[in-house]
Amino acid sequence: MKRGIVLFAHGSRDPEWGEPVRKLAGILAERDTDASVVTAFLEHLPPPLEQAVDTLAERGVNDITVVPVFIAQGGHLKQDLPRIVAAIRKTHAKLSIKLAPAMGESSAVLEAMAEFASLASRGAR
Amino acid sequence: MKRGIVLFAHGSRDPEWGEPVRKLAGILAERDTDASVVTAFLEHLPPPLEQAVDTLAERGVNDITVVPVFIAQGGHLKQDLPRIVAAIRKTHAKLSIKLAPAMGESSAVLEAMAEFASLASRGAR
Repeated sequence: MKRGIVLFAHGSRDPEWGEPVRKLAGILAERDTDASVVTAFLEHLPPPLEQAVDTLAERGVNDITVVPVFIAQGGHLKQDLPRIVAAIRKTHAKLSIKLAPAMGESSAVLEAMAEFASLASRGAR
Repeated sequence: MKRGIVLFAHGSRDPEWGEPVRKLAGILAERDTDASVVTAFLEHLPPPLEQAVDTLAERGVNDITVVPVFIAQGGHLKQDLPRIVAAIRKTHAKLSIKLAPAMGESSAVLEAMAEFASLASRGAR
């Protein structure tokens, strides 16, 4: 099995919005050298999830994890994402595609966010 | 100076959406015991930022940091938040209110997110 990870974020009309997501992809690619890492966006910014999965499939990836770069799970992750993934599974029947929870479900992410907030408040950022 | 931190998140029609933000507030309050910590939301979930600042002011806080629990900076943080804060400053002239950057600006947060993504892909979450 060849692993791939899609960092799936909301997107924004502001093109700068995608920068931290692309930076995250760079950090992840350095850290997890066995995985092929791509970004995808729900709205406004390219590429959409379908295209990101196509890219991974072209690279021979057959084990894909979609990781939502979202704070929490609302309508986008509970309704939109499963609908998009269901459609992708129909066109990529041989791929394993699993969905990770939102970033806010990770205690380590929340700990890092708390540290950032505390430092910002103390003016030590 | 008495410090306060507002964890300011987007919000969602889904009430569960606020849970990680409230969990983050709990972690932060335990970690930064000198600070009074509250949550606020831009849309759908209570309280709005104005009310969160009122709460801190009633507690005697005079040094407030608004920390956006957002992945990245788009229109909400570049336009909406400064406009809301400008209005709050008019009614709370004695308060110091500063704005922190989005969570995605923190390397430590991105590192924790990368670790989470890698573990999720390896099925080790």
